[in-house]
This record gives sequence, structure tokens and C-alpha cells, in this order.
Amino acid sequence: MKKTALLLIDMMNHMEFEGGDDLLKNSIPMVERLKELKKRAKKKGLPVIYVNDHFNHWQDNTDAVVEECRESKGKPVVEEILPEDNDYFIIKPKHSGFFGTQLDILLKQLNVERLIITGVATDICVLFTANDAHMREYEICVPEDCSAAESKEAHDSAMRIIKQSLNADIQIAEKISL
Amino acid sequence: MKKTALLLIDMMNHMEFEGGDDLLKNSIPMVERLKELKKRAKKKGLPVIYVNDHFNHWQDNTDAVVEECRESKGKPVVEEILPEDNDYFIIKPKHSGFFGTQLDILLKQLNVERLIITGVATDICVLFTANDAHMREYEICVPEDCSAAESKEAHDSAMRIIKQSLNADIQIAEKISL
Amino acid sequence: MKKTALLLIDMMNHMEFEGGDDLLKNSIPMVERLKELKKRAKKKGLPVIYVNDHFNHWQDNTDAVVEECRESKGKPVVEEILPEDNDYFIIKPKHSGFFGTQLDILLKQLNVERLIITGVATDICVLFTANDAHMREYEICVPEDCSAAESKEAHDSAMRIIKQSLNADIQIAEKISL
Amino acid sequence: MKKTALLLIDMMNHMEFEGGDDLLKNSIPMVERLKELKKRAKKKGLPVIYVNDHFNHWQDNTDAVVEECRESKGKPVVEEILPEDNDYFIIKPKHSGFFGTQLDILLKQLNVERLIITGVATDICVLFTANDAHMREYEICVPEDCSAAESKEAHDSAMRIIKQSLNADIQIAEKISL
Repeated sequence: MKKTALLLIDMMNHMEFEGGDDLLKNSIPMVERLKELKKRAKKKGLPVIYVNDHFNHWQDNTDAVVEECRESKGKPVVEEILPEDNDYFIIKPKHSGFFGTQLDILLKQLNVERLIITGVATDICVLFTANDAHMREYEICVPEDCSAAESKEAHDSAMRIIKQSLNADIQIAEKISL
Repeated sequence: MKKTALLLIDMMNHMEFEGGDDLLKNSIPMVERLKELKKRAKKKGLPVIYVNDHFNHWQDNTDAVVEECRESKGKPVVEEILPEDNDYFIIKPKHSGFFGTQLDILLKQLNVERLIITGVATDICVLFTANDAHMREYEICVPEDCSAAESKEAHDSAMRIIKQSLNADIQIAEKISL
Repeated sequence: MKKTALLLIDMMNHMEFEGGDDLLKNSIPMVERLKELKKRAKKKGLPVIYVNDHFNHWQDNTDAVVEECRESKGKPVVEEILPEDNDYFIIKPKHSGFFGTQLDILLKQLNVERLIITGVATDICVLFTANDAHMREYEICVPEDCSAAESKEAHDSAMRIIKQSLNADIQIAEKISL
Repeated sequence: MKKTALLLIDMMNHMEFEGGDDLLKNSIPMVERLKELKKRAKKKGLPVIYVNDHFNHWQDNTDAVVEECRESKGKPVVEEILPEDNDYFIIKPKHSGFFGTQLDILLKQLNVERLIITGVATDICVLFTANDAHMREYEICVPEDCSAAESKEAHDSAMRIIKQSLNADIQIAEKISL
């Protein structure tokens, strides 16, 4: 199997925006499954890479981003899935994890060719990161139970496109082989 | 109003792929409206930019792409909307019109800040071009009656995301101000 | 005049590589002039942006990079020009400050159109950042007394190219208008 | 050995700019050696890729670019090294062959990992293409007798940087193993 990495998109999240309450509600059950998936990935020694909004900290400063989110409305999700010291943490300034970031460079250095993409929101940052990964010829899995959106309709619209336009494997996390 | 350009995504299209019959069927009524929109744009002197798959011609050669499509299953659509001599024609190798192309450089040279994005398919190349435009801070319109997909569901899923995640103006073409 | 930002390339630098002694020696007199230029820029309210190698910290973590450099061979230079709280700090994974970074996005958000590029080494990261800035149509100044290389020949070769190929203003710092 | 491609930078060139006479004069002896190198590359079945300025044709149209150059001051060089039907031809809008082009995508599709970079001018488009190749982790050769600049000093300054900053192999063409 191709070398795989696990991406967590915007899981350090203050949820302090319009629709944030709904996103938080939908993320709480999801984060449990994502935690499990992360545990499996780390047991296998796979790279775990947080790719996260910088929330207008324009210093590339992981700690500041994490601290701010721990004190925010997003706390119930954030505390469940904090980055560990040997996780990678890449700051992204826009929707896609590949735009204006070193993600692609890091993945090449790690010889990663397959990505498991998780996080929030399915219909924005997850979808657009998945597309950018596909254009760069990574094999992609987007387990349908490890991302969340503000509504079921938004989640489903995005998953439909991820499956059909990007040919992604969207099986639930526990079925994905690592 | 910001300086505007009209983008036509993959309208030179041989439609020779799985689902191509459905895409062709849905493109035939759409191309009439797009023709009208293009006519309005040209009357206003706006740049009209074809952004098109190269169908594995790896020489950047517009004429070869157009000729091939004129002799293909896509003919009924292609012949209606052929590029004119003073239209721009940019070859794209992947889904997004911005990925591996000179589109962004051309738009800056033309001082364009607002894009009207049209073409096929709504849920792949139109959607992903729209997202890349949004990340680059263009104002975007994606008139809902000037793009098409293989099914109504696919078109609607994509339009929903274009509207909600990208804040695009999706009014029908005749309501869009040029 | 166009809105201007001051870039400091790789000034947080441990100098622990082959040729590092020479680069350090040539950087010590240079950093005094750069300090002066930075002071002038801040007095004018211009954005000051550190663009810096991450030295294989693959977490985007400014503080870790700065701390490491303060305890290194580069200390005599580093301590003179530490980033201040309201300076920007962008981590770059490769030579050019634009490659795999959010620099271009930040500059657009700040409406910057003119860059003063300084730092080390003239013939690598300064040169290649200057070229990438030129391709993106920024106006560029590379004051010849605010960058350094391992040898005078290397510095001069690069400055020659910066002047002739990139049309940059290479006057000494005190002559550059801010 | 890694799979190799031969790049010819801006060899379709009208030479109609300031300094064009000097560049033409220095390109005439160079093109003979480049022809020989191209012959060897094609005998080995290696991809030969022209990466060329579009001279403000904003339609991606190889034939138009080639025709214009055949009728220009650059004719004595251009006629010696015309692209053949099975050569690739990629249009670049700026200095570097990687900026706003599909070059990187094509190279990945061809599984190329090593580039022999040739053409004009050494101190602009050759140098900046070489740097972009290096940042993308291609192994690079820039044979010192298969590129040219307006002056020997400009050529030598650039070759010095290509050798020292990019670690490129700069042996003369006939010593380069294909």
C-alpha cells in the first residue's frame, strides 16, 4: 500500500462564527471517531498532520492558535483532539490546505502518496483540500464519518462531489485500511 | 463596478467519456444562454477567456484542441460557442482553471477583479475553478443557468456549495450586471 | 508611492552549516545597517515581515525557531535583529520566500505593492525571493548593503543579476525612500 | 539513473529587444552544441520539452509562437532548433518555466526526476527555471556550453550561482550522461 498520512483540517477551531453552533453540535460525535482513527494511525507510525486556519495570527505560531482555541466555544471538540508533540502542524491562510502552505513539500519529504482527509467543514476546507490533493495526484480517502458540516445537507452535497468528482474512497473510518 | 471577465470552462469538449451523453444533453440548452451572455460581454468590451482541458495534447496548442472537438460527439455544443480570434484561450491540465496555468497572471495583467464563471461540469471544473478564484480574492458570479453537469443532482449540489461556501452570486445570466 | 513592506530573509539563522563562519562574519557589519533600516520602516508604520527557514521544525512555530537561533553560532547577528511582537513572521521551507508560504497572500491583504528585500544569503534566498517577487509584479528594492553572502564574489554575482535581470533598485539603505 | 528530460528554454526567440544582438551572437555557436545534445536525448527516447515565452500571444498557441520567431531577427538560431512533432511545447508567461505553466504536472506524468536545462538567457530564465526545479527537488544539470547570455560576465555570474547555490552539474554537454 502507498505510504499514507492522516490530515486533520481545522480541528483547532473556535467555532465563533455564524453557524458555529451547528458545526460544533455536528463535530462532537464526529471527534470521537476521529480520535479513534488518529490512534490507529499513530500506532502504525503514520504521519499525523494538522492543517489549520491561523485565525488572523499572521505569525506562523502553532501554540498561539492552539491556546486561543482551547479557551473558545470550540473547547469541547478542541480538547478531545489536541495536537501531540510529534504531530505536524501546518498553518493555512485560506480554504485549501495546499494553498499558501508547505503541505505539499512536507508530504513529498515524507514520501506520502495517499491521504486520509478529515475535519471541518466538509463542504469548504475538507472538500477543497481534497480537490487540491486530487489535482496533485495523491490517492485520497475522506471517511464520511470523520468530517462534519453545519447541516446534513451541506455534508451530503460535499461528500457526493468528493465521491463522484474526485473518485475518493469515502468508507467509514473503521473500514479504511491504514 | 470591478473590472469583469467572462470565463468559459471546458466548452471545447469532446464529451467522449462515461456520462458524456448526459452532459451533452444538459449542455445543449445551456449553451444558448451562454452564447447570449458572451454576446453581451463582448459588446461591453469585457475579456472573454476560454479555459480548457488539453485532452492530452501536451503541446500548448489551441487550434489542435478546437479542431479535435469540432469533429467529436461534443460538436452540437462546440459549434455554438467557438472561440473567436480576439478571445483568450488558456489550456488547463487539471480540474481548476488556476492550477498549472497562466490564468491568474493574465487576469492581473488585464486588471480583472470580478469573474463570471460558466461552462462544464458544474460539480468538477466549474466548482474548483470558482474555489480557486475565491481563494485568490476575486469576486465571483456563477450564473446557475450557464453551467451544466451530468445530472440535476450533481449540478444542484455544486451550486449549493458555490453559493454557501464561496458567497458567489448565482443569479441567472440575464440578471447579472456586466 | 506604492505601499511598501520590509522583508528580512533568514535573519534568524544558526549559521551552522559549511560556510557559516564566512556568512556570519559578513553579516555582522550588515546587521547594523539593517537594524537602522528596520527602525525607519517601523517609524513609518510599514509592515516588517520576517521570512525564515524553519530548520526542520515542521510545526509552523515561530517561537521555536527564534529560540533555537538565539542559542546558536548565529547569536551575534540574531540578537541584534530579533522580531518584535508586531512584526510578521512567516516560515519558508525552501529558498524562495514565496514557495510554500503565505507571503503573497499576506502582502495582498496588506495592499503591499513594493518590497524592500534584505537578509542572507544574497546569492540564494535573497536572489530567489527577489525573482519570485518580480514575477508576481511587485516593485523591488534590494539595498546592496543590507544583504550578505559567504564571499564578496557571491554577493556581487547575485547583486548584478538582481540589478540587471530584475530591474531592482539596489541603492544603499539610507538612500532608499520609505 | 533517474529518468531525465531535456528542457530548452526560450529557444524560439525573436531576439528583438535591447541586448538582443549580443544574445543572438552568443547563441549561434551554442545552438550547434544544443542540437547535438538534443539529438542524443532523442536517440535515447528522452522527453524533449520546449518551455517558451509566449511573446504576448495570450492564446496558448505553439504554432503562432514558432511562426513569429521564424520570421524574426532570431531566425539563424530558431531555424537550427525547431521543435519536432513529438517534442513537448509549453508556454510560459514569466521568467521561470514553472511559474504559471503545466511543466511540473507534465514532468510528474512522465516520471521525470532529473532535468537538463538549456537555452537563453543564462542569467534570467535559465537561472530561475533551475532554481524552481531545485526547490521542487529535481536533480539538475545545466551544461555550461548549452546556454547563453548577453555577455560573458552575465553568463558566468549565473553559472556560478547555479553551481554553488543549486548544486547543479554544469559539465559541458558531451560529458553529461543521458
